[in-house]
Amino acid sequence: MRPFCAARARLRCQGGIGLMSPRVPSASIGAPLFGGSLSRNTRRRRPSVSSAPFRFRFTSAASTKVDVQKGGKGQKHKGGKGHEEGVTPRSEDFGKWYLDVLKAAELADYGPVRGTMVIRPYGYAIWEQVQSWLDTEFKRTGHQNCYFPQLIPYSFIEKESNHVEGFSPELALVTQGGGKELEEPLVMRPTSETMVNHMFSQWVKSYRDLPLLVNQWCNVTRWEMRTRPFVRTLEFLWQEGHTAHSTAEEAEEETVRMIRMYEEFATKMAAMPVVTGRKSKIESFAGADCTYTIEAMMGDKRALQAGTSHNLGQNFAKAFDIKYLDQDGELKHVHQTSWGVSTRMVGGIIMSHGDDKGLKLPPFLAPIQVVILPIGKKEDQLKAVNACAQEVHDALQASGIRCKVDSSTGKSPGWKFNYWEMKGVPVRIEIGARDLETNSCVVARRDKPGKDGKTFGVPVESESLANLVKSTLASIQDGMLEEAKQFRDSNIVDVATYEELKAAVEEGKWARGYWVGSDELEEKIKEETGATLRCFPFEQPAGDGQCFMTQAEAKEVAIFAKSY
Amino acid sequence: MRPFCAARARLRCQGGIGLMSPRVPSASIGAPLFGGSLSRNTRRRRPSVSSAPFRFRFTSAASTKVDVQKGGKGQKHKGGKGHEEGVTPRSEDFGKWYLDVLKAAELADYGPVRGTMVIRPYGYAIWEQVQSWLDTEFKRTGHQNCYFPQLIPYSFIEKESNHVEGFSPELALVTQGGGKELEEPLVMRPTSETMVNHMFSQWVKSYRDLPLLVNQWCNVTRWEMRTRPFVRTLEFLWQEGHTAHSTAEEAEEETVRMIRMYEEFATKMAAMPVVTGRKSKIESFAGADCTYTIEAMMGDKRALQAGTSHNLGQNFAKAFDIKYLDQDGELKHVHQTSWGVSTRMVGGIIMSHGDDKGLKLPPFLAPIQVVILPIGKKEDQLKAVNACAQEVHDALQASGIRCKVDSSTGKSPGWKFNYWEMKGVPVRIEIGARDLETNSCVVARRDKPGKDGKTFGVPVESESLANLVKSTLASIQDGMLEEAKQFRDSNIVDVATYEELKAAVEEGKWARGYWVGSDELEEKIKEETGATLRCFPFEQPAGDGQCFMTQAEAKEVAIFAKSY
Repeated sequence: MRPFCAARARLRCQGGIGLMSPRVPSASIGAPLFGGSLSRNTRRRRPSVSSAPFRFRFTSAASTKVDVQKGGKGQKHKGGKGHEEGVTPRSEDFGKWYLDVLKAAELADYGPVRGTMVIRPYGYAIWEQVQSWLDTEFKRTGHQNCYFPQLIPYSFIEKESNHVEGFSPELALVTQGGGKELEEPLVMRPTSETMVNHMFSQWVKSYRDLPLLVNQWCNVTRWEMRTRPFVRTLEFLWQEGHTAHSTAEEAEEETVRMIRMYEEFATKMAAMPVVTGRKSKIESFAGADCTYTIEAMMGDKRALQAGTSHNLGQNFAKAFDIKYLDQDGELKHVHQTSWGVSTRMVGGIIMSHGDDKGLKLPPFLAPIQVVILPIGKKEDQLKAVNACAQEVHDALQASGIRCKVDSSTGKSPGWKFNYWEMKGVPVRIEIGARDLETNSCVVARRDKPGKDGKTFGVPVESESLANLVKSTLASIQDGMLEEAKQFRDSNIVDVATYEELKAAVEEGKWARGYWVGSDELEEKIKEETGATLRCFPFEQPAGDGQCFMTQAEAKEVAIFAKSY
Repeated sequence: MRPFCAARARLRCQGGIGLMSPRVPSASIGAPLFGGSLSRNTRRRRPSVSSAPFRFRFTSAASTKVDVQKGGKGQKHKGGKGHEEGVTPRSEDFGKWYLDVLKAAELADYGPVRGTMVIRPYGYAIWEQVQSWLDTEFKRTGHQNCYFPQLIPYSFIEKESNHVEGFSPELALVTQGGGKELEEPLVMRPTSETMVNHMFSQWVKSYRDLPLLVNQWCNVTRWEMRTRPFVRTLEFLWQEGHTAHSTAEEAEEETVRMIRMYEEFATKMAAMPVVTGRKSKIESFAGADCTYTIEAMMGDKRALQAGTSHNLGQNFAKAFDIKYLDQDGELKHVHQTSWGVSTRMVGGIIMSHGDDKGLKLPPFLAPIQVVILPIGKKEDQLKAVNACAQEVHDALQASGIRCKVDSSTGKSPGWKFNYWEMKGVPVRIEIGARDLETNSCVVARRDKPGKDGKTFGVPVESESLANLVKSTLASIQDGMLEEAKQFRDSNIVDVATYEELKAAVEEGKWARGYWVGSDELEEKIKEETGATLRCFPFEQPAGDGQCFMTQAEAKEVAIFAKSY
C-alpha cells in the first residue's frame, strides 16, 4: 500500500463537490471548534442539550409536581425569562452565538466522535426542505436519482490522484472487515467521482446513452481537522450530481444550469443573495476545466461557498476511459460535469439570518411557518382558546401552510414567545380569551420585534386569515432577502489598489476589484490578508479596468474575502 | 484493542433492524453469489450492463448510422426479438432469473468492492416509492426524522456486546483517518442502537421528553460473506426508527403499530401478502424482549423477512443509563423500541411478482405506471401519433398517474413491448395510425399476456381514459395481491408430525404446526431440514393443539420455512 498522505492537497469545501485546492491550506476558523482528540474523548459527555435555555417538548402533559427541564435541577420555566438565558449576542461573539443557536434551537448536537454531529429533528427538517426543492428541480430537468456504494477501492483513489495533480483527500480508511485485515484498504467516499466514473465507463457505449444525468443523496466522509457543525464536519450529507454529455457545449450548459439552480434556490428559498461566479484556477476543483460557485455573505461578513458546479471537461473521461460511439462512427470521450450542495446550506441559512433572539428562518424553508399559541388561565378559557387554535390550525393547513399549535402547559406565554422566536418560526398567532370575544387573533412577525411586528384584531375567518398569513409570509421572505442584499452590498468595497483591499479585508468586508494577477499574487494576498479569491462574478461592471495589484489592463473584477 | 471477531453470533437479517441470531449461522443461499475475493478483484470489470438484452435509453435521437446498444458490436434491435434474448426462465433457475432481471430491467449493478451494489435509477425509483409511503406514515404517527453519525467508537460496540449476550456484528473498521492511525478504531454503523442510545441518554431527562420518536434514513454496513443484490449486501439503505417511552404498555403499542404499518405497506402497496408474527427466542434481536416480523413468500417459496419491529424493553435503557424523572418524582428507565425496513424490500417485490417476461411491478409502487407507445412508420403518421401520445400523457399526468411516452426511434413496437414488460410497467397504451382515425387507443395489461390483457378501441378522451386507466391499475394491484395470496396459501402446509414437516420443507413449502419445542429442537429442525422458525403468526387457529415435535399441548402454531 502506498502512503496516502503524501500529496500536498486537501480535499475540502463541502459546500460543493470535492473542491480541491492544491496550494490552499485549510482556512483557519476563529470561532470555537467542536470536538477534541478522537481517541481519548470518544465517550466524553458533550454538554447536555437539555441544559439549553429553551429545552421544551411538544408533548403536552398534565400539571407537574416536578419540572426537570433544566437538567433535572427542578427549575421551573415560568415567566418570560427565557430570553435572558438566551444566546450569546451575535455582535459579541459570532462563533459562540452560532453554537448557542444550534443548541438552543435544537438544530444539532455533538456526536461522540470528534468532528461529527447529530442532526436533530428540527435541523433535519430544514434539510428536508432543502432536499425537497432541489430534488424536484433535479427531476424536472431530467436527472434521475441512484445510489453508488460508499466504499471505494484504494486503487481508484490512487488512479484519480495520479490523474489529478495534487489530489490528496483527507481519507478515512477501512482496513478490517468481518474480522480480517483487508488486502487493499477501502476508502469511505469523500466524493464519488472515481466510483461514478468507474460505472459510467461500463454504462456509456453509444451516443444514445447520452446525456447521462444522475444524482445521489448520501453521506460523505472527510477527515477535517477544524470542524464546525453544518459548516465543516467529518461526515456530512449532500447531493452529488454527475453527468456525461456528447459535446463540450452541452456540458458547459449543464454546469451553468446547475449553478443557476443553486443560485435560484439560495435567493428564492433561502433568502440568501449569493454572488454567483467562476472560481480562480487555484480555487477550482483540480480535475475541472472550470468551477462555478455561489458565495454567500454570513452575518459576520465571512464568505460561505454554498454550492459548486464543475465542468470536468474530458479529464475524468480520459482517466477512466469513458468513450462512446458517435453517430459518425467514431469513438469519442464524453464531456462531464459534477455539482453539489450539502448540509452546509443549513449552516448558511442560520448564519445569514439569525439574530440575538436566535434562529430566523426564511418562511419558504421554515418547517413550521406559523405557530399558534392559545393563551388562557382558567380551565374553561383554555378549552375555548385551544379549540379555536385547532380550528385556525386546520384552516391554515388546508391552505398549504405548515403550522403547529403549542397548547403545552406549564409554560408562560412569554416563555413560549421566546422559545418559538429562538426556533425562528416566521409567524406567531396568539389567541387569548379576550380575542375570542371579538372572534379575532393577533398575528406577530418574527422579523419585526415588539408591537411593530404585531397586527391586532385579525378576524379568525379561515379564508381571510389564510390569505393574510400567506401575504405576511411572502412579505417576510421578501424582507429577509432585501435585508440580506443590503447587508451584502453595503459590505462589498470596490478597490483600486492593494492597500484598499487590505483596508477592506481588515474591516471584515469583501473587496471587489479588477484582477489579472498571477497565482503567486493570489497566494500572496491570502498569506498577507487571510482573504481568498472567492470568484469572478458572472455580473460584471461594464468595460475594462486596471488590475488593482499589477495595474495591467483587466477585463474582469474578482471578489476577495475571508471565508469559512 | 480487543478482538472483535471472537463472539459467536452474526448480525444479520437486513430486512429488519439488527436482528441478532446468536446460534443461527448465516443461511446458505443456493443461488449464485455476486462478487469475488475483495482485494484481488476490486478492479475486475463486472459484466457490462450494456450487454443486457433490453439496453435502451429514454433520450431519443435522430436515425442512426451505427447502433451500438450491444456493447459496441453494432448489432441492431429491430423486430420483436427482445424476449428471445430475455431472462433465464424463472422455473428453470430462480437465482439466475433474479440476477438476469436485475440486469435486464436496469435495477442494479455490481459495485467494484465485493458484495456492494449500485442501485441504478430505475431500482432507486422503486426505493423512493417505498420511502415516500413509509415516510408519510412515520410522520403522520408523530415520528421525526433526524441523522446520527455513521462512525461509532469501538468502545460503544463493546459496551453493547457486553450487555447483549452473543452480539458480534460483522463489522467494518476504520483504523486510519487523515493519514494517521487512530488510537481507537471506529465502526461503520451496522445499526445505530449504540449511537442513538448514547444520545438519548443526554436528551431524556423528564417524562415531558417522552415519548421520543425518531427515525433516520441512512446507509449501514455489514460484512456479509454471502451476498445477493438488494437481499443481502455489504452496504444497504434502510430506515431505522428508535423510540423511548415512559411505560411498557406504550412501548408494546408502538412495536405493534410499526409492524402493522409494515404489514399494511407490504400488503396494500407492494401486493406482498406477508405473514405477520412474533419471532422465536432464537430468531429475535438479542437485545429485545420481543421481535415482530413480516415474512413474505418469494416466487421460489423461500421466506423473506421483509421488516422487523423490536420491543427492546428496558435492556438498552439500563445499558446506556437512560432515565427520566417521572411525575411522581422518581427516576425510571425508559422503555424502548426500534424497527426497520431496507432496500431488501425492493428485492422482495422483484421476487414476489416477477415472471419469465421480467419484472412485474405493483401499480401503486411502479415509478412508471403507464407507458404510452406511439406507433407509426411514415413521418406524418409519426408526427400525429406522437402528438396524440403527448396529449394522453398530459391528461393522465394531470390525473395523478405516473406515465411516460416512449417515442424513441430505431426500435420496433415489438422490441418496445418486450422492453417495457421487462421493466414491469403495469399498463401500456398503444396509439397507432389506425387508432387515430377512430380517436382511440389500445390499453394493455402487464399481468395478462397477449390479447386477453388488451382492450381495443378505447376512446382517447382524457377523463374517461384516465378513469379507465385508474381502474385498470387498481384491478392489476388487486389481482397481484390475490395471486400472491393464493400462491402463499397453497404453499403453506399444516403439519402434525415432524415427518410431515420434513416432507413439506422438502417440497419447498412452508410448514405450519403447533409448537412448544425447546430451542434445541428448533436448532435440530434447522440442522436437519434447513428450515427456520419464521414466526408465530398473529393470526392463529381457534383452540389449542399438540406440538408436532413433542406432542405436548401447545397454544400456538409456528411457521417453519427455508429463507433468504
